[in-house]
Amino acid sequence: MNNKTMDVTGIGNAIVDVIARADDAFLADNGIEKGAMNLVDAERSNAIYERMGSGIEMSGGSAANTIVGLAGLGGQGAFIGKVKEDSFGKVFRHDIIAAGVRFETGLSTSGPPTASCLVLVTEDAQRSMNTHLGACVDLGPEDVDEDLIRASKTVYLEGYLWDPPRAKEAFLKAAAIAYGSGGKVALSLSDPFCVGRHREEFLQLVERHVDILFANEDEITSLYQVSDFDSALQAVRGHCDTVALTRGAKGSVVLSGGEVHVLDAEPVGKVVDTTGAGDLYAAGFLFGYTQQMDPVRCGS
Amino acid sequence: MNNKTMDVTGIGNAIVDVIARADDAFLADNGIEKGAMNLVDAERSNAIYERMGSGIEMSGGSAANTIVGLAGLGGQGAFIGKVKEDSFGKVFRHDIIAAGVRFETGLSTSGPPTASCLVLVTEDAQRSMNTHLGACVDLGPEDVDEDLIRASKTVYLEGYLWDPPRAKEAFLKAAAIAYGSGGKVALSLSDPFCVGRHREEFLQLVERHVDILFANEDEITSLYQVSDFDSALQAVRGHCDTVALTRGAKGSVVLSGGEVHVLDAEPVGKVVDTTGAGDLYAAGFLFGYTQQMDPVRCGS
Repeated sequence: MNNKTMDVTGIGNAIVDVIARADDAFLADNGIEKGAMNLVDAERSNAIYERMGSGIEMSGGSAANTIVGLAGLGGQGAFIGKVKEDSFGKVFRHDIIAAGVRFETGLSTSGPPTASCLVLVTEDAQRSMNTHLGACVDLGPEDVDEDLIRASKTVYLEGYLWDPPRAKEAFLKAAAIAYGSGGKVALSLSDPFCVGRHREEFLQLVERHVDILFANEDEITSLYQVSDFDSALQAVRGHCDTVALTRGAKGSVVLSGGEVHVLDAEPVGKVVDTTGAGDLYAAGFLFGYTQQMDPVRCGS
Repeated sequence: MNNKTMDVTGIGNAIVDVIARADDAFLADNGIEKGAMNLVDAERSNAIYERMGSGIEMSGGSAANTIVGLAGLGGQGAFIGKVKEDSFGKVFRHDIIAAGVRFETGLSTSGPPTASCLVLVTEDAQRSMNTHLGACVDLGPEDVDEDLIRASKTVYLEGYLWDPPRAKEAFLKAAAIAYGSGGKVALSLSDPFCVGRHREEFLQLVERHVDILFANEDEITSLYQVSDFDSALQAVRGHCDTVALTRGAKGSVVLSGGEVHVLDAEPVGKVVDTTGAGDLYAAGFLFGYTQQMDPVRCGS
């Protein structure tokens, strides 16, 4: 991988989060599935926003967070994702570039606004997300910079990319270029509801296109429609070179070269917020992977 | 004040803060006065933003923060301030209404964008602010809702209103209506640099128009161009019904009805952030004042 100057290029939904506190009654009254990423249209996004409390805004997006985390660890990262040239779009572009990530996707000048995710945080530290994909629906294969993909050791994709209509075409183009130039393809399953929406396509991807798969317990059991982790583990074995499965307090399991490695989690105190834990696990793993560490060390 | 259904109506600059960490070298390299509110034009705002790190965005503005604080205490508050109908303007309007504040100022549909304040937080917890007034320059007397002012027990103004060109006309209109309807007028001096920019006008205001004056030690000594707090105290005596002077860890001094009341501060641990301390002191004071508490209790 000597001609590879970029460690990881992520492709994902480019989103600005709007984060506010809420109580369970608010979620129930507004039909918001707790702890899930709910997709909402513009009208529903506006309706929830009008009712919710004062918030703070910050750049988000699953794969974007992973690449920002990778850059923070000292890795070379790039991101491809679509925002509009509006205030939130400028915030997203500023923040990801300021974090040291290469970001050169053109901003759309017409069409829907930059994607937003209304994040409602309840007392129990769960986050209920309401994503309006906005400008993300404009991401397509024309946004994939071929030279960048050829220069990348790994291309990383979030499962959420299957929600907007043409982003999967961008992924397939990027994956083809990566294979043709000796790069690896990594995929995160994103969340169990996302797996439910796109199970057949994800199963095909995992069998054919993906070298490194990231999933948590809920996601991998949803993918194979099995009730326990061990059955999922048996089902996924052999499909990808490397599979990194996170289990929260139970630690993680890394499948690599046919071997199963069980890693314990470090004990922590009270967990106040699990948001981004999966995104940052992937950041750490990919950093180690692209520095050619042993996959077991990558997962710890 | 029986016909007064609104406790406090604030008039101020309507701003969205963009908050990021920075080091002293960044401030020096970019010519930013540490701990101050620096006024910047659009070009300089953009230049600083491009160079600064990833941020979070939240609604701000001095008088706006005070009215939000008042509403949080259970008071009836309204706010008059100008934003544009852009993403940040919608964020500002949403947040202040969600906090329980009446906000009916029309959003501008052309002209400069919603005001932003690039807040750079250094290790020592100081905040160096870079405010681009944007749409605030469009605030004028036509934005003062006469019925609202007549219904308000107190009209509260921030000294920063003297920076945009026509906002002071809005203030003078509101003050005249307040006097004519038995309301009180309160003013915060905002910061010592603001006092330096508008000293002559502030001195006249304090002598003629203001019933309740809020200032900290630096602001009141700057107003009277004296070197110590006691001299400033003697200078301001007799000019306003009520003067509330804050001194950080030294507590506060309230002048009321010719009497001087010294209040000790509650001891606190390490101070990590003093932003908004003055805004929230004013919120607490005005809440007590409009509930007809004794002024000394208001200041504690």
